[in-house]
Amino acid sequence: MLPVRSAPGAGGVRGAEALVGSLVGAGVDVCFMNPGTSEMHFVQALDTVPEMRGVLALFEGVATGAADAHARITGRPAAVLLHLGPGLGNGIANLHNARRAGTPLLLVVGAHATDHVRHDAPLQSDITALAQTVSGWVHTSGDVRDVADDAVRAVAATSEHGGQVATLVLPADVSWSEGGALAPALPATSPFPPAPERVAAAAKAVRAPGAVILLGGPALTVEAMDAAGRVAAATGARLLVETFPRRWDTGAGRPRADKLAYFAEQALEQLDGASSLVLAGARSPVSFFGYPGVPGDLVPEGTAVVGLADTASDAAAALAALAAEVAPDAEAEPAPRDAPEPPPGPLDVRSLCAAIAATLPEDAIVVDESLTAAAVLAPALQTAAPHTQLALTGGAIGQGPPAALGAAVAAPDRPVVAVQAEGSALYTLQALWTQAREHLDVTTVIINNSAYAILRVEMARTGAGDAAHSDRAGRMLTLTDPTPDFVSLATGYGVPARRAETTEDLLAALRWAQSEPGPHLIEAIVPALG
Amino acid sequence: MLPVRSAPGAGGVRGAEALVGSLVGAGVDVCFMNPGTSEMHFVQALDTVPEMRGVLALFEGVATGAADAHARITGRPAAVLLHLGPGLGNGIANLHNARRAGTPLLLVVGAHATDHVRHDAPLQSDITALAQTVSGWVHTSGDVRDVADDAVRAVAATSEHGGQVATLVLPADVSWSEGGALAPALPATSPFPPAPERVAAAAKAVRAPGAVILLGGPALTVEAMDAAGRVAAATGARLLVETFPRRWDTGAGRPRADKLAYFAEQALEQLDGASSLVLAGARSPVSFFGYPGVPGDLVPEGTAVVGLADTASDAAAALAALAAEVAPDAEAEPAPRDAPEPPPGPLDVRSLCAAIAATLPEDAIVVDESLTAAAVLAPALQTAAPHTQLALTGGAIGQGPPAALGAAVAAPDRPVVAVQAEGSALYTLQALWTQAREHLDVTTVIINNSAYAILRVEMARTGAGDAAHSDRAGRMLTLTDPTPDFVSLATGYGVPARRAETTEDLLAALRWAQSEPGPHLIEAIVPALG
Repeated sequence: MLPVRSAPGAGGVRGAEALVGSLVGAGVDVCFMNPGTSEMHFVQALDTVPEMRGVLALFEGVATGAADAHARITGRPAAVLLHLGPGLGNGIANLHNARRAGTPLLLVVGAHATDHVRHDAPLQSDITALAQTVSGWVHTSGDVRDVADDAVRAVAATSEHGGQVATLVLPADVSWSEGGALAPALPATSPFPPAPERVAAAAKAVRAPGAVILLGGPALTVEAMDAAGRVAAATGARLLVETFPRRWDTGAGRPRADKLAYFAEQALEQLDGASSLVLAGARSPVSFFGYPGVPGDLVPEGTAVVGLADTASDAAAALAALAAEVAPDAEAEPAPRDAPEPPPGPLDVRSLCAAIAATLPEDAIVVDESLTAAAVLAPALQTAAPHTQLALTGGAIGQGPPAALGAAVAAPDRPVVAVQAEGSALYTLQALWTQAREHLDVTTVIINNSAYAILRVEMARTGAGDAAHSDRAGRMLTLTDPTPDFVSLATGYGVPARRAETTEDLLAALRWAQSEPGPHLIEAIVPALG
Repeated sequence: MLPVRSAPGAGGVRGAEALVGSLVGAGVDVCFMNPGTSEMHFVQALDTVPEMRGVLALFEGVATGAADAHARITGRPAAVLLHLGPGLGNGIANLHNARRAGTPLLLVVGAHATDHVRHDAPLQSDITALAQTVSGWVHTSGDVRDVADDAVRAVAATSEHGGQVATLVLPADVSWSEGGALAPALPATSPFPPAPERVAAAAKAVRAPGAVILLGGPALTVEAMDAAGRVAAATGARLLVETFPRRWDTGAGRPRADKLAYFAEQALEQLDGASSLVLAGARSPVSFFGYPGVPGDLVPEGTAVVGLADTASDAAAALAALAAEVAPDAEAEPAPRDAPEPPPGPLDVRSLCAAIAATLPEDAIVVDESLTAAAVLAPALQTAAPHTQLALTGGAIGQGPPAALGAAVAAPDRPVVAVQAEGSALYTLQALWTQAREHLDVTTVIINNSAYAILRVEMARTGAGDAAHSDRAGRMLTLTDPTPDFVSLATGYGVPARRAETTEDLLAALRWAQSEPGPHLIEAIVPALG
């Protein structure tokens, strides 16, 4: 329900109220925020528009990462409220991840009052230029009479191109002036429907031996996976899932699919000999980084690339059409449930992943920022309880703790398990505080190997040699001297925490975390790479 | 000394080595870094160019804030190494502060290998667009044969326009390729010398009754302050210091000068009736934010603005010339030493600031991100031991912990005292870890009033009403439920910490912190605003 207020024309309401009320009317009813002086009227509007839920973050990257995950779970945009250019800067990394995920996200950035801009006051900077690097749509509201219309246009824009960030820059005077009125929601943009000629081409490709279907973006829902599983069962095509899916419904009972490997050499092996690569909601695979002498394009020579549905298309419908064509009577072969507890003993990455899989609650959301552990985690989770995975889509680390927060706000009835590399956690650990404040059911497992382990691997791969173990260069890749103590850090943010050094410690800690309401953190000590 | 290596033409060295070696040759020998895969060869070069000191940060905003403070203390640029667009995003807030400070800062941003860009891999984004929002100079290195020349041009660019951020984008292949050679340093740009007609105009202004000299930027060194003090003693002109000075040598024995108030109404009072406002290294004062019905320009009607030296000029020389003209025989009147210990009792902002002033070590560096406490801290420090203050120049909070780190690296023999609002500390608290790792003599005093206290004040000032105390809006301005525990947080980052709730607690904790080597943190509990 929209709030009742004075009619437009009779003075109207303040810009901030018109904005917030119109957002609620357009279905945007959660705002992750880190406001400042120029956003005080937006904050004040939380009192007069109680349908909007404000969630405070201690750092902007927490707000943006949370909104990304919230939208991935709900399918609707959440809002973010940030303070001027520097606040936007702090939010950019997770907005980059949202951009790469194709997440619909409404970003409101407060700005100086219009007639204050000419003074070039200390906080003045080029908000638009910053916003354009992560947004598909950017607009600055110029007048209180426009702000509600601008807001609903921004919401509609979040649905374009398969989902994108839309940024509304909100000058303080537009926010505080009276004369605003609510604006009705605008229709969202629908994804492109399946193209018959693309379905036909894909059908031809999967009927030939050696086809691979690469699933990504919107093609990883329960329905889309089921259709893909039917195609695989009927044709023998192999299913692969893009390396960093925005949202993947997987686990026992759902069709089995391997993730495309992160390292280019391994991905090339997975694709070796494929007769065709059918893209369903996924982009044609490329190496994450360039390396000396390694190809950037991961499609083997001789493999035909067949685009069934791109990221802006209704990939689930396209897969359903493909299944109707090639597998009218087939059933998808479900992954079995097979996640035994690991035996007692010292923790390593393998037993850690097994323990998480063994204790995974039904219908959990798994936030995966496990980095070096990811290649072990994915197969372990394949046969665990059915769940939804959210991955680090844009490679901008520090996504996990905010994403766990946003997912838990989006789905209060679903437990959230965050599997988290320690170095990445330290970018946005402030998210724990909001998890505590909002009493969210999040279990964070920190994988603490006291190193930027991925960089040690990468240093060797880039040909920079074994400097990882030298004193001076190697010291830039270790997280020792001192080793961060995540139990203390979590406690400082109000989240109960325990340390686990053995498999039995970890299993006990996971059960402890899942038996109590609210957030918990487990610091799992695993050996550093050699 | 530059490292010895193979001569150019005989294959040359890797680009990263040519770059790092040339930076050292140009006087840039500290690099605050948060590297990723694309920067591995730069990291590796720390082994072959041992004159470059690498300092690892857990978050990019720590690296940029540290480099800003390092340069403010040394007068030379420090380097920062960041990873692609998202890493730069995380560093933007403190780069914004550096931009506003006129800090010479050399930013190196690693990028994808040149031939990898076309793949639009997950981490690809518009680095140049981001960099331009905070930099006066941006260039992408295109070839290993250019990179050393690009580097020394970048260093030279940091000295232009009174000091600025220069950004060199470094593709991974330029970094890893062989064929580089060292480049000799280029001369720095000198600040504009004093203009005789401006000195004459300022002399005329200060000889008239009621003149005010506003000191800022480069005009706050010992020498510049002494010259200003002589002018004040001879003419009766009042000295004011800009609200957020980049570096101010002050305290007992140095000329007394009040800071221009943060709140516009108070600043207008300070300037009321001034016959002239002589600007020495300071910009003409404007309100930090725009407020309904409050002027943005803080110069009273009827006050003549006289520009003696702008921020790109040699303001110290200009003040010396002015002093030679109007005060050839005068001596500056020094502030007395008068910083008694506060009496025992519960802490409040006044007794907290008094305790810091009473215990301030000689020649300390004070990093001031005290926000609401600043108006009390400044007069207390005026009569404390002589020291150097660094302030939040650009209003992008989260500068204090990184700045304390950078100042301590720059001046290992000077104790650093960081007076730190709690909300702001939580943006970049990871700086504590690097303080511990580098064994830096930093005492951080967290002022914990469990609120974004400044925003409560600002909410009322912007006319958004008393929503600060409502449930829904007010909850966005409080840091309770849970209250962050800074003793736990500091412990987690390896920094010994204590809590103080009374004046005697705080005095004891300050003496404890200053009697041991290495960093310490004191969480001072003060009452939240009413």
